[in-house]
Amino acid sequence: MNDTPPEAETTPAERVEALRRADATFVAQGMAVEEVADGRVSVSLAIRPDMVNGAGVAHGAWVFMVADTAFGYAATTRLPGALTADADIRFHRPAPLGARIIADAHVVEQTRSSLLIDVTVRDEEGRRIASFRGGARAPRR
Amino acid sequence: MNDTPPEAETTPAERVEALRRADATFVAQGMAVEEVADGRVSVSLAIRPDMVNGAGVAHGAWVFMVADTAFGYAATTRLPGALTADADIRFHRPAPLGARIIADAHVVEQTRSSLLIDVTVRDEEGRRIASFRGGARAPRR
Amino acid sequence: MNDTPPEAETTPAERVEALRRADATFVAQGMAVEEVADGRVSVSLAIRPDMVNGAGVAHGAWVFMVADTAFGYAATTRLPGALTADADIRFHRPAPLGARIIADAHVVEQTRSSLLIDVTVRDEEGRRIASFRGGARAPRR
Amino acid sequence: MNDTPPEAETTPAERVEALRRADATFVAQGMAVEEVADGRVSVSLAIRPDMVNGAGVAHGAWVFMVADTAFGYAATTRLPGALTADADIRFHRPAPLGARIIADAHVVEQTRSSLLIDVTVRDEEGRRIASFRGGARAPRR
Repeated sequence: MNDTPPEAETTPAERVEALRRADATFVAQGMAVEEVADGRVSVSLAIRPDMVNGAGVAHGAWVFMVADTAFGYAATTRLPGALTADADIRFHRPAPLGARIIADAHVVEQTRSSLLIDVTVRDEEGRRIASFRGGARAPRR
Repeated sequence: MNDTPPEAETTPAERVEALRRADATFVAQGMAVEEVADGRVSVSLAIRPDMVNGAGVAHGAWVFMVADTAFGYAATTRLPGALTADADIRFHRPAPLGARIIADAHVVEQTRSSLLIDVTVRDEEGRRIASFRGGARAPRR
Repeated sequence: MNDTPPEAETTPAERVEALRRADATFVAQGMAVEEVADGRVSVSLAIRPDMVNGAGVAHGAWVFMVADTAFGYAATTRLPGALTADADIRFHRPAPLGARIIADAHVVEQTRSSLLIDVTVRDEEGRRIASFRGGARAPRR
Repeated sequence: MNDTPPEAETTPAERVEALRRADATFVAQGMAVEEVADGRVSVSLAIRPDMVNGAGVAHGAWVFMVADTAFGYAATTRLPGALTADADIRFHRPAPLGARIIADAHVVEQTRSSLLIDVTVRDEEGRRIASFRGGARAPRR
C-alpha cells in the first residue's frame, strides 16, 4: 500500500484511512472507525468525564463531532477533497457519561459536485441520540 | 453571592457563570467567556494542534463547539434550563491552527417555551468563519 | 363514519382525511393523497404553467408545499394537532412544467412531544428532486 | 431600458424586475415587491381564503413562498443566475386569513460562488412569523 495513492486508484477504505491518519482530532478524542464501505462509514466515540456538564450529559458538540467525522469520511469515499458546506443536527436524547455512541453515515444523494449525507447517532442499545444531515461540495477549481 | 441562587433572583452573568463552572468541556478545551448580557453571550476558543487536520485547518466540530457554547449560555440568560433542540451550521472559511475564534450569540426570537438564537463565528480580523442558528426549548414539566 | 370522531378512536386514514378536507391549499392546488399508513403519507402535485419561472422550472415553494403537506399528514397519524416547528429543504434537481412530483414522508423519530419526519420528493422516474426534514411538536397545553 | 440587458450593466432593481416578470408564481399569487436595494429585497403576500386550513391559518408553504421569493430576488442583486441550494425555515406564529405578511431578505455572507441570505417574515404589526435562512450558489460552468 502506498501512503499517498492517486485518488483514482484508491479504495474507499484507503481514502478513509488517509483522512483518519491526518486527523488530529480523531486521534486525540479517541474515536474509532467501526465500518467503511462505498458511501457508508460508521465512527464511535466514548463519552469521558471531560465531555459532560453538571448533569452528567455530553455537550452537544461531542455528538456533533462523531457525526461530522462519519460524515466527512463517508464523503471522501465518493468525492475525495469534498468540503463540508453545512449541517443540520437535531438532538433527541442525552448521551450520558460512559456511553459509547456510534454515528452511521450514508450518502443519500450525489450530484456531480455535491453530496447529501445523513448520519444517525445511536447509543449501544440502538436508541437514537441525534439526527445529522450534511451537505458536502467538491472544491471549485 | 450565592452558589445556587433561585433563578428568579439571578442575573444573566450569574446564570452563565453557574453553567460555565459545571461545564467540563468548557474548562478542558480552554474556552473563554468574552461578554455576557441579557440575551447575548460571546465565547472564544484558540485552535490548537490537536484540533486540526492534515491541511492545518480546524475540524468543523470545534467551530460548532464554540458556537454551541455561546448559544447555550445565551439561552440560559433568558430560559434557565433550556435544552438545545436543533442547530443549523454553515461553514464559510476555514479556521487555521493558532487562530482565536469568537462566537457571538444573540436571541433573535423568544416565545413562552422556545428561543431562536443566531451565532456568528469570526476570526480576530472579523471574517465570518461560520453561521450557526439554533433552537432551544424550555423543558416540559 | 363520524365527521369529527374522538382522536383516540380514529385511524390514520381518517385523521388524514379530516385534515385534507379542511385544507383549502390542498384542494385549490390539486394535490392528491397517494398513500396513507401509520407514520407514512405520500402526496403528489402536478406542475402547472402558473408555477414556473422563465426557465420553465417550478418555484421551489411548490416543491416545499407538497413536501410540507405530506409531512403534516404523516405527523397527524402519530400526534394529532401537532404543529410544524421547522423544516430544512435541499434542492437537488429542478421540477419542470408538466411533471407530477411525489412526496413520500415517514416518521424517523418520535418522542412524547415531538416528531422528526423525513420527506423525499421525486419525479415520476424516481429521480430525487428535493430532500425535506421537518420537526413537529405537540401543542403545549 | 433594455429587456435583456447584459448582467454587468444592470442595476439591482433591473435584475429583480427581470426575474419578477418571468415568475408566474409571483404574478398568480399576488405578491408585491416592497423594496429593492443591493443585497436587500422585501416582498409581501396577502393571505387569501384558499391559503388557509380549518383553523383559519395559512399553510406554512405560503409563508415559505414569500420568504423564498424575497431570498431569490436578493440573491440576484449579487449573483445573477444563482440557484437556491437549501433553506431552513422556523415557524414562530401563525399567519391568519386576511393578514399581509412581509418578507425582508438580506445577504449575510458572500463568497465567490455562494450567498447566505437571512429572511424575516413579519405581519403588519411587526411580529415575527417565521425565520428563513437560505444558501444560494452560482451555477457551475
